Amino acid sequence: MTDADTLARIDALQTRYARALDAKDMAGWTGCFGEEASYVCIARENVEQDLPVAIMMDDSLARIRDRVTYIEKVWSGTFEDYQTRHFVQRVGCVARGPLIAVESNFIVAYTNARGRSEILVAGTYEDEIELRDGEARFRAKKAILDTVTTPRYLVYPV
Amino acid sequence: MTDADTLARIDALQTRYARALDAKDMAGWTGCFGEEASYVCIARENVEQDLPVAIMMDDSLARIRDRVTYIEKVWSGTFEDYQTRHFVQRVGCVARGPLIAVESNFIVAYTNARGRSEILVAGTYEDEIELRDGEARFRAKKAILDTVTTPRYLVYPV
Amino acid sequence: MTDADTLARIDALQTRYARALDAKDMAGWTGCFGEEASYVCIARENVEQDLPVAIMMDDSLARIRDRVTYIEKVWSGTFEDYQTRHFVQRVGCVARGPLIAVESNFIVAYTNARGRSEILVAGTYEDEIELRDGEARFRAKKAILDTVTTPRYLVYPV
Repeated sequence: MTDADTLARIDALQTRYARALDAKDMAGWTGCFGEEASYVCIARENVEQDLPVAIMMDDSLARIRDRVTYIEKVWSGTFEDYQTRHFVQRVGCVARGPLIAVESNFIVAYTNARGRSEILVAGTYEDEIELRDGEARFRAKKAILDTVTTPRYLVYPV
Repeated sequence: MTDADTLARIDALQTRYARALDAKDMAGWTGCFGEEASYVCIARENVEQDLPVAIMMDDSLARIRDRVTYIEKVWSGTFEDYQTRHFVQRVGCVARGPLIAVESNFIVAYTNARGRSEILVAGTYEDEIELRDGEARFRAKKAILDTVTTPRYLVYPV
Repeated sequence: MTDADTLARIDALQTRYARALDAKDMAGWTGCFGEEASYVCIARENVEQDLPVAIMMDDSLARIRDRVTYIEKVWSGTFEDYQTRHFVQRVGCVARGPLIAVESNFIVAYTNARGRSEILVAGTYEDEIELRDGEARFRAKKAILDTVTTPRYLVYPV
């Protein structure tokens, strides 16, 4: 268990992350990661069968930044845009050396093509968070999806 | 950023608000607003295009109270009732003069005519909150809906 | 109202509960209850009409443990399994003698047979929580479902 101040910083990072994605503020999304960082989005069934196939796999900050370039420059205008709304609830938190391992439940609602809100994906985040100069950043963020078949293809990270 | 005690009061106001609406306790809903207050429920596409057309627009406490009269007296028995369940997650908070500007994600589940639960609306609250004698109240509450087409018409505020 | 430390213990119990169910860790679920405990899952319409018919009704820790035996031993292999994801938001909290009465909103997402995520059930928890040696445990947990017709039958507790 971690002290209340650290937990507050961790929760602030998670809401900053959610807010950036929901606002399509991709620079804000990148800013949630540290210099040494990774981002993975993977189906739970692949995790459970120990299959390495991921939906998104960015194993460095450079690749995380590449993803933003793809979304904002390369793919721009070629996909049907969508509005997400993230909810995150921390369910576990433990120190792991200099890092903090945090597990959270998440659900992402989105507005579908008919204009209705439904669940895009649900799952858990398994994160490794570093605290440097009092600020929390992701060293590793892994979004594990319960959802097997998403109702539309994913463009933005989860 | 605001101190932990103030944040706790703000979060308590938001859950008091959610609880009042989910219990159809309209006096409890009115009690979340200060003497000088406004309530607006508006589609995000209208906000983004700077169109003033809102779904609900109560620009004074008197109008907020009028809405309750309509729901409880005028419309009573004329609409198909429904049960909501609100979830609110604070994603931003900043002092603005004597007020605190708070941004939150929300999702409202409801039980549809087939008896199933689905998402009624999702979106963000943009609120201005006042602290008076240690109690938090809404000076202005704006519910901005991501949802373009709600699965049923809205009677209760969001 | 209860002090911040007690609230933190209560919220930790709720997330421990959610995490156990989402991980199908039934021993973890049982461990959330005290020696003297009850678990009830009931439709809101039955509560409102004061009808005692419940979906699940375990009036002792022995019956709570029996439920786990049924799920893990008796029913095992006879039902289509499913993955849940719980979200809980505390909306009320008041001391009641030596216990703390806590009310929360909940929503449970699940992955349906088509691989999509939707809402399984939404509703409120009405809990009585005891604090013993600094640890919070349920003396009584009641899950009241808004959902009238669940999209699939429930095997796991909510």
